[in-house]
Amino acid sequence: MNSPASPFQTAQQRSSARQAKRDAVLRAAVQMFNEKGFHQTSLDDVAARLGVSKPTIYHYLGNKDQVLFECVTFGLAQLIEAAQASQARPGRGIDRLIAFLTRYAEINMDDFGRCVILTGDEALSPDSRKQFHALKRQIDTAMRQLIRDGIDDGSIAPVDPKMLAFALAGALNWPARWHDPQGTETAADIATHLVSLLAQGFRPR
Amino acid sequence: MNSPASPFQTAQQRSSARQAKRDAVLRAAVQMFNEKGFHQTSLDDVAARLGVSKPTIYHYLGNKDQVLFECVTFGLAQLIEAAQASQARPGRGIDRLIAFLTRYAEINMDDFGRCVILTGDEALSPDSRKQFHALKRQIDTAMRQLIRDGIDDGSIAPVDPKMLAFALAGALNWPARWHDPQGTETAADIATHLVSLLAQGFRPR
Repeated sequence: MNSPASPFQTAQQRSSARQAKRDAVLRAAVQMFNEKGFHQTSLDDVAARLGVSKPTIYHYLGNKDQVLFECVTFGLAQLIEAAQASQARPGRGIDRLIAFLTRYAEINMDDFGRCVILTGDEALSPDSRKQFHALKRQIDTAMRQLIRDGIDDGSIAPVDPKMLAFALAGALNWPARWHDPQGTETAADIATHLVSLLAQGFRPR
Repeated sequence: MNSPASPFQTAQQRSSARQAKRDAVLRAAVQMFNEKGFHQTSLDDVAARLGVSKPTIYHYLGNKDQVLFECVTFGLAQLIEAAQASQARPGRGIDRLIAFLTRYAEINMDDFGRCVILTGDEALSPDSRKQFHALKRQIDTAMRQLIRDGIDDGSIAPVDPKMLAFALAGALNWPARWHDPQGTETAADIATHLVSLLAQGFRPR
């Protein structure tokens, strides 16, 4: 006969249970910020949705400003990961740019990416704002570099990389405001569609 | 000898002085909302910047929510005017669309247009929000119609007008977040540049 499982959690189990709870709190918070707006959401609202107490939220994530900062940092980390993956990818600049842009748009339709776009930086504390800008700059720098790579290998039209990056980022950030997760088109389909429109331009070829 | 000017204002002078004061209050408010964020700005801040009392602000514009609504309504009215001008214009669809988009981008870099973009609709009261959406829908409808006109006359690539309108609006809304009015490029130059990038696409022709 096997020995019965210990009724005590191992250190690893405790740690992963803690992580799961923290994730659940963060997900509930980001969804409420996105739905109702950061300023219109209290941590009491978040606690009520999860059926926990407000001190539980503080325990896992800190005060409301800190919760917001965790949300945007998580979204930005996803975007940076996508940028790094595209930078590491072999191939022509345009293909690497398109891969990155498609993933970028998808992330912006997901909870944490939406929060990055919907959050005006004036909502963050001065310290958090600095970090927020530094992370955003990483993404912007990566996008411009992919554009430059494509211009250099002739796969992207010879344009101003800074201005093109602004145009692309804007077009692919905006779904954070209009995308309906309950809609018929998936985020992946919308992302592919938008990126293809931006690559082709609206002037007939 | 000419008779001296009357020390009393005419009804017309009183009315235009009132309008000038109202405009000054609205301009100060929109600039502060854009700089500091709506939620971080109080009407006391706006009054202090103008060197007037808070009741003066109430007198001209009402409470803070009403002030915000006036700001976004003014911005949207400029966009609607631009849409109507392009609709009334003769010529090919693409030229009318480009004229509209360029003006649209310029307005979004100006005080009231920026406020339209920076304002999450959850900041507005339910009634104001409905009107805000109705006005935005007018602009969106006009943009899609210009796209359809261009597709019909062959001057615009045969794409999904709804998705193209989303992509264009996003790209041209985004300068509200990054445009620096003190920068070296004028809003008109940036607008022309962005619209040309969107017309050409980044794939070489």
